Amino acid sequence: MSCFLNPQLCRLVPYTPGEQPQDRQFIKLNTNESPYPPPPEVMQAFTQTEMESLRLYSDPQATRLKQQLANQYGVKTENVFVTNGSDEALCIAFMAYAKDGRGVAFPDISYGFYTVFADLYNIEVQKVPLKEDFSIQPQDYFDLHKTIVIANPNAPTGLALSLAEIESIVAHNSDAVVIIDEAYVDFGAESAVQLTKKYPNLIVVQTFSKSRSMAGARLGYAIADAALIQDLETIRFSINPYNVNRITLKAGELALQNQKYFDDNCKRIMQTRSIVQVRLKELGFTLTDSKTNFIFAKPPKNNAKQLYTQLKEQGILVRHFDQPRVCDYLRITVGSEQEMECFLKTVEDLL
Amino acid sequence: MSCFLNPQLCRLVPYTPGEQPQDRQFIKLNTNESPYPPPPEVMQAFTQTEMESLRLYSDPQATRLKQQLANQYGVKTENVFVTNGSDEALCIAFMAYAKDGRGVAFPDISYGFYTVFADLYNIEVQKVPLKEDFSIQPQDYFDLHKTIVIANPNAPTGLALSLAEIESIVAHNSDAVVIIDEAYVDFGAESAVQLTKKYPNLIVVQTFSKSRSMAGARLGYAIADAALIQDLETIRFSINPYNVNRITLKAGELALQNQKYFDDNCKRIMQTRSIVQVRLKELGFTLTDSKTNFIFAKPPKNNAKQLYTQLKEQGILVRHFDQPRVCDYLRITVGSEQEMECFLKTVEDLL
Repeated sequence: MSCFLNPQLCRLVPYTPGEQPQDRQFIKLNTNESPYPPPPEVMQAFTQTEMESLRLYSDPQATRLKQQLANQYGVKTENVFVTNGSDEALCIAFMAYAKDGRGVAFPDISYGFYTVFADLYNIEVQKVPLKEDFSIQPQDYFDLHKTIVIANPNAPTGLALSLAEIESIVAHNSDAVVIIDEAYVDFGAESAVQLTKKYPNLIVVQTFSKSRSMAGARLGYAIADAALIQDLETIRFSINPYNVNRITLKAGELALQNQKYFDDNCKRIMQTRSIVQVRLKELGFTLTDSKTNFIFAKPPKNNAKQLYTQLKEQGILVRHFDQPRVCDYLRITVGSEQEMECFLKTVEDLL
Repeated sequence: MSCFLNPQLCRLVPYTPGEQPQDRQFIKLNTNESPYPPPPEVMQAFTQTEMESLRLYSDPQATRLKQQLANQYGVKTENVFVTNGSDEALCIAFMAYAKDGRGVAFPDISYGFYTVFADLYNIEVQKVPLKEDFSIQPQDYFDLHKTIVIANPNAPTGLALSLAEIESIVAHNSDAVVIIDEAYVDFGAESAVQLTKKYPNLIVVQTFSKSRSMAGARLGYAIADAALIQDLETIRFSINPYNVNRITLKAGELALQNQKYFDDNCKRIMQTRSIVQVRLKELGFTLTDSKTNFIFAKPPKNNAKQLYTQLKEQGILVRHFDQPRVCDYLRITVGSEQEMECFLKTVEDLL
């Protein structure tokens, strides 16, 4: 830290991403990446012409991608916000709706970045405890008079609220913005996107990182009422108007063209998830009912941290969070059938 | 605007990027893009393997690119900060060093984004007037006890300070951070990068957008003392750790491998600039001594805005700023020889 840093930021604890080793081949089950590549259509973004076009700025309005997303969800382009990964959409939404007195509420166990965004902008946080079984009680979020952020399904628990439960939270907070972070929604949960047509206080955030196999392209988006999107666009154009590069925009447009590939991949991951869940239960693990592309699992000997280390020594990366309540669990990304077979065999040997 | 927006941001006027028409072929001389593609090496980022690797997150540490930039400048990786375009580096630096009371000083005529960043973070601004000839007087920036931002060369004037002048500003502000924005430095000005080894209060920001023909890839970087870089990294990891996508990181690494291509392109653009400057002077234009890849030119009939419109009707985009002092000028990107020939002929016809 330098002596020049803004004193408000001196104690900022940044987000810790999952390990991204650059030097050794691991079976990576630690950052919820897809085991499958993007659809073959995306190769059309990898041509000589596209490479040479890098000399030109990307479209700051993301016109074509917005149009495709709008078509996909039956909304207008004015309801779509396109970002450099969904973290950017969340960060801008925190700035727009939680900074300067409003405050923010989210579950005490959820995506770790919410706390970091709040610290960054000096936002007062109300952490709402999950129930003993890690579930979210919708009533706990009624009439809080604060910006509300809920990951649905939640991370790292994997548990999802029903659409009716999400709607009840949105309806009971008409004086505040409710942000539903649907990073994992395509693996068995219900999306709240259609509710954005009914509720002017709802923002739904999604990403191409997980179900669309494009974590490395950095592409996220939000769907909301046009007035909310206009707020977010004002801030984006005050931070980084060319926030998404040309290749990613093009790759996103191409990826959306192949709905079948997307559906098949999601199904395949959900099938693998089921198989691994059964096997882990047989081995004595305690599991949540994950609706995501990861499994949240408590080892039978209650030695999550040790097992994380042993797996890493065997070349398998999973995620362990050193925090109360979740430190007894591992978050295991659902990889390919072969990767999960190897993971299960290694776990069996270690137990 | 929604009724939910943070009141501090309600009057925010975002940055206005140059027009980026998506529907018609223009001769684009309005956003200082390079007329030449990136070096052929960059095609190695456009393979099937790289496309399939999009399923994995990018390296949040940008390890290899940082190493290459460090080698290039004779600094360490801990002195290098890699961003999603140089705007992101500037935005984070404003947050780190100007927010919360410190205040910021920059020339009254400069890159329009500085004012926007200041507004975004509610930062007090001291605008230091340029001299009548648009030059910056270094003494005006001595001992201001504020964060100082200087584009060198300056935009849209194109004028550069010497390295000695930059050093005098840095040396006379040892209690504050001085940010030198070198977006255009490769077209004939002197870089202050080497001064970062001597001064712990200096940040030099550069970009791949102009001289490296990669505006559409979104890649910028900053070089500074390790303590300053650590500050910037703390904030980056609190906003968007995966801020640069895989393809852009790879393309950046590959682009740096071909120094000759880069040198030749810069020389060629400077040669074209000289030729166009001579021709415009013959036509009665008043010019500044631009050290950038654009020409700042006042038409003989003092009808800059009209000429901008007429050129656009003829399919040629240049930039006009509707602001005091600079509204009599046009900012004309140096395109290819053919583009500039067409531009000059059109101007001749219009005059």
